[in-house]
Amino acid sequence: MKILLLQGANMVALGKRQPELYGTTTAAELDALLLDQAKQLKVSLDIRYTNVEGKAIDWIYEADQSGIDGLLFNPAGFAYAGYALRDCLKAVALPCIEVHMTNLERRGMHSVTADAVDGVIMGLGIHSYVHGLRALVRLIHSGQGG
Amino acid sequence: MKILLLQGANMVALGKRQPELYGTTTAAELDALLLDQAKQLKVSLDIRYTNVEGKAIDWIYEADQSGIDGLLFNPAGFAYAGYALRDCLKAVALPCIEVHMTNLERRGMHSVTADAVDGVIMGLGIHSYVHGLRALVRLIHSGQGG
Amino acid sequence: MKILLLQGANMVALGKRQPELYGTTTAAELDALLLDQAKQLKVSLDIRYTNVEGKAIDWIYEADQSGIDGLLFNPAGFAYAGYALRDCLKAVALPCIEVHMTNLERRGMHSVTADAVDGVIMGLGIHSYVHGLRALVRLIHSGQGG
Amino acid sequence: MKILLLQGANMVALGKRQPELYGTTTAAELDALLLDQAKQLKVSLDIRYTNVEGKAIDWIYEADQSGIDGLLFNPAGFAYAGYALRDCLKAVALPCIEVHMTNLERRGMHSVTADAVDGVIMGLGIHSYVHGLRALVRLIHSGQGG
Amino acid sequence: MKILLLQGANMVALGKRQPELYGTTTAAELDALLLDQAKQLKVSLDIRYTNVEGKAIDWIYEADQSGIDGLLFNPAGFAYAGYALRDCLKAVALPCIEVHMTNLERRGMHSVTADAVDGVIMGLGIHSYVHGLRALVRLIHSGQGG
Amino acid sequence: MKILLLQGANMVALGKRQPELYGTTTAAELDALLLDQAKQLKVSLDIRYTNVEGKAIDWIYEADQSGIDGLLFNPAGFAYAGYALRDCLKAVALPCIEVHMTNLERRGMHSVTADAVDGVIMGLGIHSYVHGLRALVRLIHSGQGG
Amino acid sequence: MKILLLQGANMVALGKRQPELYGTTTAAELDALLLDQAKQLKVSLDIRYTNVEGKAIDWIYEADQSGIDGLLFNPAGFAYAGYALRDCLKAVALPCIEVHMTNLERRGMHSVTADAVDGVIMGLGIHSYVHGLRALVRLIHSGQGG
Amino acid sequence: MKILLLQGANMVALGKRQPELYGTTTAAELDALLLDQAKQLKVSLDIRYTNVEGKAIDWIYEADQSGIDGLLFNPAGFAYAGYALRDCLKAVALPCIEVHMTNLERRGMHSVTADAVDGVIMGLGIHSYVHGLRALVRLIHSGQGG
Amino acid sequence: MKILLLQGANMVALGKRQPELYGTTTAAELDALLLDQAKQLKVSLDIRYTNVEGKAIDWIYEADQSGIDGLLFNPAGFAYAGYALRDCLKAVALPCIEVHMTNLERRGMHSVTADAVDGVIMGLGIHSYVHGLRALVRLIHSGQGG
Amino acid sequence: MKILLLQGANMVALGKRQPELYGTTTAAELDALLLDQAKQLKVSLDIRYTNVEGKAIDWIYEADQSGIDGLLFNPAGFAYAGYALRDCLKAVALPCIEVHMTNLERRGMHSVTADAVDGVIMGLGIHSYVHGLRALVRLIHSGQGG
Amino acid sequence: MKILLLQGANMVALGKRQPELYGTTTAAELDALLLDQAKQLKVSLDIRYTNVEGKAIDWIYEADQSGIDGLLFNPAGFAYAGYALRDCLKAVALPCIEVHMTNLERRGMHSVTADAVDGVIMGLGIHSYVHGLRALVRLIHSGQGG
Amino acid sequence: MKILLLQGANMVALGKRQPELYGTTTAAELDALLLDQAKQLKVSLDIRYTNVEGKAIDWIYEADQSGIDGLLFNPAGFAYAGYALRDCLKAVALPCIEVHMTNLERRGMHSVTADAVDGVIMGLGIHSYVHGLRALVRLIHSGQGG
Repeated sequence: MKILLLQGANMVALGKRQPELYGTTTAAELDALLLDQAKQLKVSLDIRYTNVEGKAIDWIYEADQSGIDGLLFNPAGFAYAGYALRDCLKAVALPCIEVHMTNLERRGMHSVTADAVDGVIMGLGIHSYVHGLRALVRLIHSGQGG
Repeated sequence: MKILLLQGANMVALGKRQPELYGTTTAAELDALLLDQAKQLKVSLDIRYTNVEGKAIDWIYEADQSGIDGLLFNPAGFAYAGYALRDCLKAVALPCIEVHMTNLERRGMHSVTADAVDGVIMGLGIHSYVHGLRALVRLIHSGQGG
Repeated sequence: MKILLLQGANMVALGKRQPELYGTTTAAELDALLLDQAKQLKVSLDIRYTNVEGKAIDWIYEADQSGIDGLLFNPAGFAYAGYALRDCLKAVALPCIEVHMTNLERRGMHSVTADAVDGVIMGLGIHSYVHGLRALVRLIHSGQGG
Repeated sequence: MKILLLQGANMVALGKRQPELYGTTTAAELDALLLDQAKQLKVSLDIRYTNVEGKAIDWIYEADQSGIDGLLFNPAGFAYAGYALRDCLKAVALPCIEVHMTNLERRGMHSVTADAVDGVIMGLGIHSYVHGLRALVRLIHSGQGG
Repeated sequence: MKILLLQGANMVALGKRQPELYGTTTAAELDALLLDQAKQLKVSLDIRYTNVEGKAIDWIYEADQSGIDGLLFNPAGFAYAGYALRDCLKAVALPCIEVHMTNLERRGMHSVTADAVDGVIMGLGIHSYVHGLRALVRLIHSGQGG
Repeated sequence: MKILLLQGANMVALGKRQPELYGTTTAAELDALLLDQAKQLKVSLDIRYTNVEGKAIDWIYEADQSGIDGLLFNPAGFAYAGYALRDCLKAVALPCIEVHMTNLERRGMHSVTADAVDGVIMGLGIHSYVHGLRALVRLIHSGQGG
Repeated sequence: MKILLLQGANMVALGKRQPELYGTTTAAELDALLLDQAKQLKVSLDIRYTNVEGKAIDWIYEADQSGIDGLLFNPAGFAYAGYALRDCLKAVALPCIEVHMTNLERRGMHSVTADAVDGVIMGLGIHSYVHGLRALVRLIHSGQGG
Repeated sequence: MKILLLQGANMVALGKRQPELYGTTTAAELDALLLDQAKQLKVSLDIRYTNVEGKAIDWIYEADQSGIDGLLFNPAGFAYAGYALRDCLKAVALPCIEVHMTNLERRGMHSVTADAVDGVIMGLGIHSYVHGLRALVRLIHSGQGG
Repeated sequence: MKILLLQGANMVALGKRQPELYGTTTAAELDALLLDQAKQLKVSLDIRYTNVEGKAIDWIYEADQSGIDGLLFNPAGFAYAGYALRDCLKAVALPCIEVHMTNLERRGMHSVTADAVDGVIMGLGIHSYVHGLRALVRLIHSGQGG
Repeated sequence: MKILLLQGANMVALGKRQPELYGTTTAAELDALLLDQAKQLKVSLDIRYTNVEGKAIDWIYEADQSGIDGLLFNPAGFAYAGYALRDCLKAVALPCIEVHMTNLERRGMHSVTADAVDGVIMGLGIHSYVHGLRALVRLIHSGQGG
Repeated sequence: MKILLLQGANMVALGKRQPELYGTTTAAELDALLLDQAKQLKVSLDIRYTNVEGKAIDWIYEADQSGIDGLLFNPAGFAYAGYALRDCLKAVALPCIEVHMTNLERRGMHSVTADAVDGVIMGLGIHSYVHGLRALVRLIHSGQGG
Repeated sequence: MKILLLQGANMVALGKRQPELYGTTTAAELDALLLDQAKQLKVSLDIRYTNVEGKAIDWIYEADQSGIDGLLFNPAGFAYAGYALRDCLKAVALPCIEVHMTNLERRGMHSVTADAVDGVIMGLGIHSYVHGLRALVRLIHSGQGG
């Protein structure tokens, strides 16, 4: 089973940017943690970061055609106006779980991509990714997402 | 560790009500599943259903004073206008995870209690409860929720 | 044929409350009138009043499981924010007619439960109930409501 | 007793237009049914159809001056922006019941003329007319409408 | 000098409709008064009433092509949604004064045609017409309206 | 003179809930203070707490029928969506003062029951109750409230 | 008969400010014209200019107490936010006509004081004042304004 | 193949009205051009103008029953509030292309009938009609419109 | 202890202006009442009226520098758009209570200065001032306002 | 004559993405069809796809400087928030026709770039491109676009 | 070269009011600094403070007639609702730069006068004045402002 | 001291695009002017242009890590929907001044990035950059920005 983890705009600065919101775990440390989790779950995990919305769209179409089984996705900075990204998610048949480290509701925010995914997990810090990865694996096994 | 699972308005009809949305697992079957999970996690789980918002508020204050460690919570029918419930959640110091079986965003809905909890998990069917229970146990151990 | 008439918040004060809007017929007199009508139509009529929205939800689920054939329903004070009640009405398969004594449109009001019922009759005073009861009986016979 | 039934824009296509909403009873069949009902109630019924809002206004003023006792009225296509019609209804002293075959609430619609009439009945298909006719006769007898 | 006075929807009922707002002067009496005023001012006055917006548009184009010098205009019932009428007023080069018997602002109303005319007079009862007629004659003499 | 003090949703937690907003005086201490004040004013004071909106409605109708002279009232959690409660307040003829411990304006909040009472006092902490009790006694003596 | 003409903020610059909108007649020339008109109508006219809203309010209360019979009024710069002025106009019993040199509707503007006056005349340049003065004299004679 | 071209409110003034927007081609010249095009395409073209919305509705129902194959349609002045027309277009099974001479988006406008047609062409001046006619012929041949 | 009572726009007309709202007590009678109350409370009370918002601001800065201990304040006509006044109130360290004679909520109004004061009292007629004066004295003694 | 066809976000997935909306013609097949059409019209056609909005802006400036005569343009996913693209279209002097395969109005959508182009064609499937190409060629010949 | 610096509502309290926002430099110190800067730039600087909007308008008209070359302007408290001031700025031909000590955007504020000036500088503390003075001198020399 | 000047979408076309708004100075000429200014101020200035929002984000993170001391920034086309850019600006600790050549307020526009910067300067043409550069240098020296 192959999974793509897509990190949206500004996630590359994780651990340095607003640590009172996002904690001090860096992007590199998060990657190591998730790759280890993936190993335990016996899935292959490809992690990519981009600040360019169109680049994220390119990667999702590539993933859809190259046999990726599911998408774990933090829109981050694309959550505000990522309508093209939302259409792309609707265009492909991939099971998809969206994660956020913080509880968007508590911060008065809203994600425009959230209505194009199967499930949403938020407010658990880096554990949002861990739960998201497990939920996605289960969803792919069930054959119902996408 | 003691946890209260609160099921909001209409959840008592689970399995019979709109099965195309909520599946055919009944409330009794869900309870059995979650009590078994709680046993494995070595936590005590108290499950309650109510259609009366004020009753839910009563129970949360009682829980807060009787040593409950955390709250797992599906507002269900209270999600639309449960403002008194939201104030109650803000009043107590309990770690709290809100769960929904469906992806509210995909259905164009919004929960007014969501900004008073620590985390939100939705769209995973009854697995939203399983992930929610585990996330809550971790949150209580971390000492950071509430 | 068994029918449940559910009277929402503030209906218990009928005849005493804002008589310029609702007339001087009391709740007891209305009950007598409707029970007489039911007798003529050869249907059994169970009339209940409550100011608690969750209690109304409880009764509707009980009715649905105990063989009631249809629901006559005046949301009254629940008309403003009774979203949980609305979901409950959608969950059960009961034919349902909603009645109001006054013309809500003329008073600039709106009922949130109205999109969950089969028909609405308003503005005819206590005759709204009489027309509603007959329309409900016809609807049950047609086998199309709910 | 003389009653005018006014059928608004597009009602002439009844039975052919969107039968999943309005059924297959044609305008001619509905007319026959209502004339028969009127005969039983011993009232004279004049039925008119128009797609021109100003024509409907003309007829209402004529009715008001020629001794008509009440108005049964389906605004249909005029429901969206018939403000001139609404003012006309307020100008005359005629008892008036507005009917709709479908439950507008369930369809997310709103009638701008509804706050200018005595009562509103909706969601009962062609029975909305039958209930409306009877309610109007009672209203005229009571001497309170208009 | 030839002037067209156009009376919009419901003006035909003047004197009978809402006399607490519009007084008891009838349409016929108002016509006589204005024709007398026109005679004093040595202008020819053509007065027309219609409840059909498109008919008003027809007349304005005819007036524009048959040598009418100016338009006195009470949109009345067309004030709410008379957008086609507004475009028509912009299309012709006729000097135009809009009049209302009541102060629309005091009644919380707004006229959609008002931004297509040269001047607006309101709140003076039937004297709004008298002032409007005089202001229009002056405007035509000045050669600046339209 | 007999007065009912009604404490709305979440007031039972006074002194423990958000003390930075509501201070540390507990519900029991507030009760003692107000009973003492009532004694000085030679009025009988009945104090009740509830988290259930319908229960509050029940009590107000009972009060209205059992000779209570006035109502002191903090809607608290019912302030957001207590429309049924608002209708109930309008239905009874009781003089009524609404109190809030905090200045709602400063918190950007609004009470939906406020347009159904005689006066509003807010922003004085527990003194809002003391001022409210006195204002109510005066209002009852004047015979003008309700 | 004594009339007060009140000129609001920026009117003192008439003839110099935005002549493409307001023409080249200066404030002094307008005063001379209106005083001459007043002489013909045998009324005493007191003309005042101010850029301070509170000063305008002072003058209106003084006028009300010193026997002025009516108010001619161009809010000008106070039209946007002159709510205190509006309350003042409602407080006094003076007949009042509001005038504007331009058609506010054509410029997409709105006057907040317009709902506190008897009539409004706009779009006729300095002739708005002449018509306004005559309409006000008639209104005072009729005894109906204020 | 028979096609009806319907020209809405104000189109009769084409060539004289706002030529900076609509050019100087008159309605008569446009008709000649389109009849010539129709001849080349071997279709029969019936062109009608009206300023009355209800008249347009009458013609569409007549067309639907007399064997017309498709509708070319410029709502013009009906574009703002032609809701009854929109319902009529949805009621009939005719392929329909809506055309506008100007780019409505560039002018900040919106057509309420546009969601009831198969295609929209705008901004090409009188060529919008030529393209519209050809697109309609193709659509009728394809058997997919309506 | 020295207190400044500031009466905003239109308060000078108290007793003459809208007596159905504000009663018949004049400004002079209110002043006498409050000076007497102040004497009993052993505080010095300086009462000022103005219709000019900037003048009110001048006085507040003067009060702040000349040893005034607190501000009693009825914004009256400044309540609609007194943003500069609001900033001034935030700038000074004076304890401040805002009073209104009527219940603004019942009248659908809102005060923009209310979020800059310590407490608000409304709906008690002239007793709003009496309660306000006492509450302010208490607030100054507590040393917590401003 | 040289024309640039720009395909916006997600168009690369044509034929695979939501075929119920966009049909089964692939991007490659559409390209072949349009190149053939271009050949018949004797114009050179350069077709480009991108998911990156800024890349589309780059290409438009390059086209403007390298002698391209006109732009055929489907914003697709950029239609929601492509404001920078809209400013770019306004900056260059290129004739431009915007096309959409579906009728955006019918889908409740809106294109933010549409007010920066000469014409819009939508709802004709891949024929939108064919009509758009021809309309653009004519527009370039007329020398009026851009 | 003569320049008028106008300080709006509350600026007189500079240095004492909200020092965490505006710093501790007093109005007198700011005046000294700017007069020194003006001396170096060889311009005459007249500095005035007022809390009365109409007074500011008076001064601007006087400045315009007495040979002032430009206006440096901090609306301060007038920024919220100074519409009359805005019209005054548009009426005169003076070059004008508006300054604010804080970044209004960061504070969620908006200045209604800003669309009537040549340039805006904000967020630089007292340096906003220094930059503004220099920019104004340059603007006057260029002959383009106003 | 090292400063990065970032030019947003469409700035590359400066001097060619809408010269009536932005003047005829080209991007190359502006660069030369600013580099000369930087030399005089003894700071190193790196100037970059991009039409891709994500590319701008990449550069800001690089700048933050490579020792850049401050950011001068014109969002240009990103001002409408550049929310990801705004989050990026908040994430880094760089002092930042935003500049616009035109007065956005006067054009009815708003920049979504403006609440993430230290200061904003607009409406001074290319002098906005010169003032911005100097203000930024001062800000960096003060050690307070970011």
